[in-house]
Amino acid sequence: MQNIKLILCYEGTRYSGWQKQKNTENTIQGKLERLIGQLTGEEVEVHGSGRTDAGVHALCQVANVKIRSEIEPDELMERLNAALPEDIAVTGTEEVDERFHARLSAVRKTYQYRIYIGNVKPVFDRRFVAVLEKLSTERSMKLDIEAMRAAAGYLLGVHDFTSFCGNPSFKKSAVRRIDSLKIMENDAGDELIIRITGDGFLQNMVRITVGTLLEVGKGAIKPEEIKEILVAKDRKMAGPMAPAKGLALVTVEY
Amino acid sequence: MQNIKLILCYEGTRYSGWQKQKNTENTIQGKLERLIGQLTGEEVEVHGSGRTDAGVHALCQVANVKIRSEIEPDELMERLNAALPEDIAVTGTEEVDERFHARLSAVRKTYQYRIYIGNVKPVFDRRFVAVLEKLSTERSMKLDIEAMRAAAGYLLGVHDFTSFCGNPSFKKSAVRRIDSLKIMENDAGDELIIRITGDGFLQNMVRITVGTLLEVGKGAIKPEEIKEILVAKDRKMAGPMAPAKGLALVTVEY
Repeated sequence: MQNIKLILCYEGTRYSGWQKQKNTENTIQGKLERLIGQLTGEEVEVHGSGRTDAGVHALCQVANVKIRSEIEPDELMERLNAALPEDIAVTGTEEVDERFHARLSAVRKTYQYRIYIGNVKPVFDRRFVAVLEKLSTERSMKLDIEAMRAAAGYLLGVHDFTSFCGNPSFKKSAVRRIDSLKIMENDAGDELIIRITGDGFLQNMVRITVGTLLEVGKGAIKPEEIKEILVAKDRKMAGPMAPAKGLALVTVEY
Repeated sequence: MQNIKLILCYEGTRYSGWQKQKNTENTIQGKLERLIGQLTGEEVEVHGSGRTDAGVHALCQVANVKIRSEIEPDELMERLNAALPEDIAVTGTEEVDERFHARLSAVRKTYQYRIYIGNVKPVFDRRFVAVLEKLSTERSMKLDIEAMRAAAGYLLGVHDFTSFCGNPSFKKSAVRRIDSLKIMENDAGDELIIRITGDGFLQNMVRITVGTLLEVGKGAIKPEEIKEILVAKDRKMAGPMAPAKGLALVTVEY
């Protein structure tokens, strides 16, 4: 039995997310399991480091799959890339210890969220950046980035992130640790990039965090109110969920 | 009568090129003329700096349109952007001298051609880079970039580019001047970028030039043979036409 680690990248636009679903063939995990099944003649399970929502991208997703076939990892990569659609690529494969599990072994993840703040339309990056409706209609409105940075400071460290969880029936511990939350402008000044690193993220947590920081940027929430939002453990206290297409999984650390 | 200069950018993937055609509504020029016609109630003609082929992109295309309406250039830009599909944007408008003509007044143009030379698949840039079939199947094969640069040297200056013209029934002068032809690798080393500046380009000339330089890179044509190819004035002597999607119009100078 080989345990093979897969490094993947994908554009999520066309997919119903990472996780396989009963009603659709249109998931990344589903596609990988079907293809690896065809290549090996085995029924396999592909474990991802985490689910990405429908429309969310991955610059680097990590998965693992256990197979009995003696196919070389390099050959598996080549054959998968030949068979996968052009918006999913395997960028690396290696045999790893049988105890390695892409989700359970992960210790840290980094996500990036891109927001277009320019004046026109993001023609070339439109599948990868969110455009804020209110900002695009009210041109004079500028995000208060310093306020957003101040708000981000309150999210660092270990907290119960129930207010930032999109799953109302989530029963397990919502305690997570955020190590870094940076808000940067690109050189052209037409894009805001939010980078967040932590030990794990609840469902929709990054998108709700971004949506909340944007409310701070617009002046609708004060930076110090983040403390109360966390303590409330109430999803209604935080901001709306930012659109999927701005989000990408960037790295998974083990 | 106002003469309005339009700065445009577009992703060419979905379009049958710049130039309006009888059988399709699916051209950039056609879309602009229809929209400006609707906004002004006039029958207008939009002159582009040059045609881009089906599938070719423009980081910056320049056009002009003469209208009787007294609409402000800023308002025209805003209304066009609201009505145009998300893969076409107007990034600037200004009123110019009535003698300004986007094509006839242009003195220099720069195109860029992107070639993916990495090992996997260009997932995120796949609509903007060409992937060479032979290179992707024969991984060991590397392009001889120095030979390509030597070949590029023979193309600089004023020449008759009939051998590089895709229109066999072209009757006018095929004499053009190439001021600069640079071949660069990106920082990641997975992309080759060819930038070409000249006073004007014949139909398909940039794509045939790139196709010919790639033949040099593969060793099928020697750099010094470029001289003979130019002198022959015979399209069959040059290399094949490179795919449309790697090409983008970058700047037009007046």
